[in-house]
Amino acid sequence: MASSSLSQAILSRSIPRHGTTSSAPQLRSCSLSLPNFNGLRASYSTSHRRVVPSSAAAAAIHRSLAVRASAPVETLDKTDTALVDKSVNTIRFLAIDAVEKANSGHPGLPMGCAPMAHILYDESMRYNPKNPYWFNRDRFVLSAGHGCMLHYALLHLAGYDSVKEEDLKSFRQWGSKTPGHPENFETPGIEVTTGPLGQGIANAVGLALAERHLAARFNKPDCEIVDHYTYSILGDGCQMEGISNEACSLAGHWGLGKLIAFYDDNHISIDGDTEIAFTEDVVARFEALGWHVIWVKNGNTGYDEIRAAIKEAKAVKDKPTLIKVTTTIGFGSPNKANSYSVHGSALGAKEVEATRKNLGWPYEPFHVPEDVKSHWSRHIPEGAALEAEWNAKFSEYEKKYPEEAADLKAIITGKLPTGWEKALPTYTPESPADSTRNLSQQNLNALAKVLPGFLGGSADLASSNMTLLKSFGDFQKNTPEERNLRFGVREHGMGAICNGIALHSPGLIPYCATFFVFTDYMRPAIRISALSGAGVIYVMTHDSIGLGEDGPTHQPIEHLASFRAMPNILMFRPADGNETAGAYRLAVLNRNRPSILALSRQKLPQLPGTSIEGAAKGGYIISDNTSSGKPDVILIGTGSELEIAAKAAEELRKEGKAVRVVSFVCWELFDDQTDEYKESVLPSDVPTKVSIEAGTTFGWEKIVGPKGKAIGIDKFGASAPAGKIYKEYGITVEAVVAAAKATS
Amino acid sequence: MASSSLSQAILSRSIPRHGTTSSAPQLRSCSLSLPNFNGLRASYSTSHRRVVPSSAAAAAIHRSLAVRASAPVETLDKTDTALVDKSVNTIRFLAIDAVEKANSGHPGLPMGCAPMAHILYDESMRYNPKNPYWFNRDRFVLSAGHGCMLHYALLHLAGYDSVKEEDLKSFRQWGSKTPGHPENFETPGIEVTTGPLGQGIANAVGLALAERHLAARFNKPDCEIVDHYTYSILGDGCQMEGISNEACSLAGHWGLGKLIAFYDDNHISIDGDTEIAFTEDVVARFEALGWHVIWVKNGNTGYDEIRAAIKEAKAVKDKPTLIKVTTTIGFGSPNKANSYSVHGSALGAKEVEATRKNLGWPYEPFHVPEDVKSHWSRHIPEGAALEAEWNAKFSEYEKKYPEEAADLKAIITGKLPTGWEKALPTYTPESPADSTRNLSQQNLNALAKVLPGFLGGSADLASSNMTLLKSFGDFQKNTPEERNLRFGVREHGMGAICNGIALHSPGLIPYCATFFVFTDYMRPAIRISALSGAGVIYVMTHDSIGLGEDGPTHQPIEHLASFRAMPNILMFRPADGNETAGAYRLAVLNRNRPSILALSRQKLPQLPGTSIEGAAKGGYIISDNTSSGKPDVILIGTGSELEIAAKAAEELRKEGKAVRVVSFVCWELFDDQTDEYKESVLPSDVPTKVSIEAGTTFGWEKIVGPKGKAIGIDKFGASAPAGKIYKEYGITVEAVVAAAKATS
Repeated sequence: MASSSLSQAILSRSIPRHGTTSSAPQLRSCSLSLPNFNGLRASYSTSHRRVVPSSAAAAAIHRSLAVRASAPVETLDKTDTALVDKSVNTIRFLAIDAVEKANSGHPGLPMGCAPMAHILYDESMRYNPKNPYWFNRDRFVLSAGHGCMLHYALLHLAGYDSVKEEDLKSFRQWGSKTPGHPENFETPGIEVTTGPLGQGIANAVGLALAERHLAARFNKPDCEIVDHYTYSILGDGCQMEGISNEACSLAGHWGLGKLIAFYDDNHISIDGDTEIAFTEDVVARFEALGWHVIWVKNGNTGYDEIRAAIKEAKAVKDKPTLIKVTTTIGFGSPNKANSYSVHGSALGAKEVEATRKNLGWPYEPFHVPEDVKSHWSRHIPEGAALEAEWNAKFSEYEKKYPEEAADLKAIITGKLPTGWEKALPTYTPESPADSTRNLSQQNLNALAKVLPGFLGGSADLASSNMTLLKSFGDFQKNTPEERNLRFGVREHGMGAICNGIALHSPGLIPYCATFFVFTDYMRPAIRISALSGAGVIYVMTHDSIGLGEDGPTHQPIEHLASFRAMPNILMFRPADGNETAGAYRLAVLNRNRPSILALSRQKLPQLPGTSIEGAAKGGYIISDNTSSGKPDVILIGTGSELEIAAKAAEELRKEGKAVRVVSFVCWELFDDQTDEYKESVLPSDVPTKVSIEAGTTFGWEKIVGPKGKAIGIDKFGASAPAGKIYKEYGITVEAVVAAAKATS
Repeated sequence: MASSSLSQAILSRSIPRHGTTSSAPQLRSCSLSLPNFNGLRASYSTSHRRVVPSSAAAAAIHRSLAVRASAPVETLDKTDTALVDKSVNTIRFLAIDAVEKANSGHPGLPMGCAPMAHILYDESMRYNPKNPYWFNRDRFVLSAGHGCMLHYALLHLAGYDSVKEEDLKSFRQWGSKTPGHPENFETPGIEVTTGPLGQGIANAVGLALAERHLAARFNKPDCEIVDHYTYSILGDGCQMEGISNEACSLAGHWGLGKLIAFYDDNHISIDGDTEIAFTEDVVARFEALGWHVIWVKNGNTGYDEIRAAIKEAKAVKDKPTLIKVTTTIGFGSPNKANSYSVHGSALGAKEVEATRKNLGWPYEPFHVPEDVKSHWSRHIPEGAALEAEWNAKFSEYEKKYPEEAADLKAIITGKLPTGWEKALPTYTPESPADSTRNLSQQNLNALAKVLPGFLGGSADLASSNMTLLKSFGDFQKNTPEERNLRFGVREHGMGAICNGIALHSPGLIPYCATFFVFTDYMRPAIRISALSGAGVIYVMTHDSIGLGEDGPTHQPIEHLASFRAMPNILMFRPADGNETAGAYRLAVLNRNRPSILALSRQKLPQLPGTSIEGAAKGGYIISDNTSSGKPDVILIGTGSELEIAAKAAEELRKEGKAVRVVSFVCWELFDDQTDEYKESVLPSDVPTKVSIEAGTTFGWEKIVGPKGKAIGIDKFGASAPAGKIYKEYGITVEAVVAAAKATS
């Protein structure tokens, strides 16, 4: 389609509701009534986050609604191109000025991407600036997160309370809402946390997946209650990262037609021209991945080309679209544009001045010209109207489809259904021995029945990780309403996609799975879960040398310690059925703190003394034969080695010792307990503490103390049957008994 | 080219020396003399490895040489297809039988890939079974490592001492040379360690890069002394992993024409048909990455098609080649072929029987028919002849080009040049303050001058990591003799490529770089470095909150601990120039133990008391004002916080305290010291130990003891100028002084 044939007016008119051409007549039946603001809004726990959704949002929406309910969206005609230029330059200079003031940051991307970004936020996207958490908003992810001043400038112009002029002026400063990379937990309006390259585009795939899944489950022929686009801007760096190929391969496979990604093709990366390391044909690669690809050759000033590309992308409903936009990094800077020097440093006063001159920008730093301000001001009332319209639609929907509405509401608000915990299975010592990966599957299936937003899958190991939900089919292109996700062998993409799902709606609870050792493949995504408060549940089986013959490449050693050292994540290693259920209970409750469950391949007995309640404390006593005073010995185990500790206790008790056995299923939860509780479980005046865990002893010194003994594995594993390795590596009852005697 | 036009005889004749057509006449001048066996061979330290190169290899080569020196390679004609069938089935049944006996393993891949594997090892590759470390051998990497029985069967047939019949019978058993995935440190003939998917193909890119680099540096118009191919087999799993796209994008960019990868296209992964998660067009993707792609549609029996593809691949000299070979997983199994059930489990006695019947295989388990044995037996004398011929060539080369030969010899043997350590820079307290990333660059450049096999680069952060070698240009398609590698933003591929380089020749010492936090992106490759004894040097800058404004996505917290917990890796955090040099010294010396250097972005003073020698002990005293007896307080710091510890000591000394300051630059090296030394540095009867490190305190309890205090950061970082974050996070002199007083 030739861009010159497109009228901006037509394009603008298509903005307020996408898909209107085909679905408007049907929609009418649930959108005729007057806006009925029902206050349906995401609830966000503030335990981890420093930011609360604006409490003034509802009032603002009511106000704006009174003025402009159902107002037609403002249209532009060709004569307004000068105003677009001015708005685009406003974005550029807000970025330039903020980076200059901070003397730190990345001006190059905002200067190059300002045109596409302007058209997205001013002409294409549906959002409500006064309620950044409105459920049906279009999502935008700046995958090239270093260019965050672009996004802050947009949020500022659009009227978000999170980015006022003083916030722009405190860019990258302590306590500001405008940190050096986009952080969803700092800045309402930022959907996910980006910066580590490639994460954002994979998050966007997760957001688009969530939309597609919810739309398939909840939309009705007479009412599209879930209906938004997911946009992203990614750069050359994101393109080079393997994670983006993984996630984009899945997006193509799933046919996520409402995912539209802009590739900022500026030929510059930190080390210089991309020619030195990146000469592949990106367009051909994306076509191979099943994407629709459009090339906008003039991303610097070709507004109509960009508009036409977006229109074309929206028309392609069965494939995601990559819009390759060729831009000039640092556009407008006479001496630094199109060079790496403009990527990650302030321009410097002289070059800022030269750029002002070059682009004809007479204003003071941080100034937004009145006509630009006025132009953007419509987004506040229009956003309020959009949300109000949707709320009215939801009221209708709720009347017609009360059951579906209740589920959707739970997903939107994140409120867990009453009594959901009763679904968790419990076990007695008489229950059959089983691997914790099998026990995990019982929990996953139990939870899927009671939690409407529970969905997930494995990186091609469903039958080993035991993660299939038996009541559901596969989420596929033609069955997006199903809940088993098939990620293929793409651990990194999987993790980041789950972050996107989790951050789409508070009630979406994604889980994902692989072998525990392969958390290494997805560690950057897991770290972003922890940092950004995405409550993903990581189901990690084959958690030790206990997996046996696959050998050291598959046997985790340092992994438990490596996650215990990571902030804001719960690292569970349950020992049996009750502890597995206990771990899932906590994982579900912690919506802003991801959880990892390390689960065994091998069968384990159901141990006396374990409980869901105990597991909630992280560390607790499962048996103690001390009749008075204090125990002679405290044996501490986790997961599959708790059984060994329990057996060693039996041996020692036969010899007349007072022995306590402690399960240490989650160090972080134990740390959260009172000092009094901690002392009651692990009294400091009992020096004989022996821990056993089939992993590194690194970190255990803190628990067992200098006179205790940590039994573990401080070398790589080996290929042999599991029992043999346990014996050869000294992870045995005999070793525990000997250590207890040696230290007491 | 139609496969039917190819004569096997022609193909076979092309085997012994590739490129003969164009280069044979020139080569003659340095290959005319009689074999002059000069014993040039890779030296492998046995400190970490359990395997030593066969000491009988030289003798065997001499023996075979006497018989078959310069013997023409045996040729096959069409009538021998039956024998090829038989050899292919031998491979299949060795795999079936070994997996069956172990009741564990992956028979499906070997059964499907046996034809291409047979043609590779029997007809295409140049190697010497009695010296698996012969420098100029063709390299083969089974990237789909779970199918390792394929490789073991090939090594067995080819006559490698590492895989005898009893080794096949002890597949996946304790202490065997045939572990569950290929491990270079267990089995001579295995080049690298694979299993974690995607690593192998990226290693292969590294091996091919090494060949290309060495060929460009050392080959002469009259003598191609470096000249081998790198082959790999990868499966659908490898294809889905992001790392393979990263590495293959680089291979295409670099035009590694002697890299030939077979894609085992069998449409089956663990979760079932690849249709459920992997529907991209792999051929088109590889073409987009700059590869030459050939599709062999009948990989099960189309021997001539496979041969033709290899011939075509060799003819394409400026691009790597992907040969997509469509196969049937578990070929020959009547009830399990073409299904996921044959992927990762023994067939079971009944199905083994049915497969024997189906493929007409009357033999006992593990039997190699006499004609197959006899056919393969030629590889021992031929391999010896190949090596002898090359040795003779090298003797000539050495005479004509003594300087180049000396460098190449150092690379081949791994022997470090005498006095290399003198090149390392040293510093005094009067030397200017500088960041350790800058000091690192001084070391890198110093080392590149004295170590002929030293090369490396950054993942698009050369100007931030300070990794450019100033005396060299960029390794590029047309300048492969240069030593600066430009990896683009591909950390994971970078790490695995460096593993391949390191394992190509003992004297190749690759380094690679990114921000320390992004070790997360390459952790699986770093783990393989540690496991497989690849002495890669990881140059990791921006090592703490000290990087400032980029914020928590870029600030490492748990990373030091996560590597201290990993076996067989040295985690250095040098404090200044001397310690940086000391870290590099140890990193170079440890050829079978990778090193990570965590380096500061910010300037640090040159501290009194630091030294290269001290750093070698991991932990050592840099100052102590104790006049008699024992110190009142021991302050322990690493990296940028050693300065804080030193300043705090000054404060405390002003108040009359006896204070010792200990630099703890490398925990692993300290652990390696005698108990006596350790006690002399950190006496157990001094309870007041305070550590300070701008990272997690996890693990420090072991060092400071229950009465000491670890000052660190157990939450995520923040975006602000570095000094502000240090202050707000309490990483200060005041905090150390206060802790020292509180605990003493």
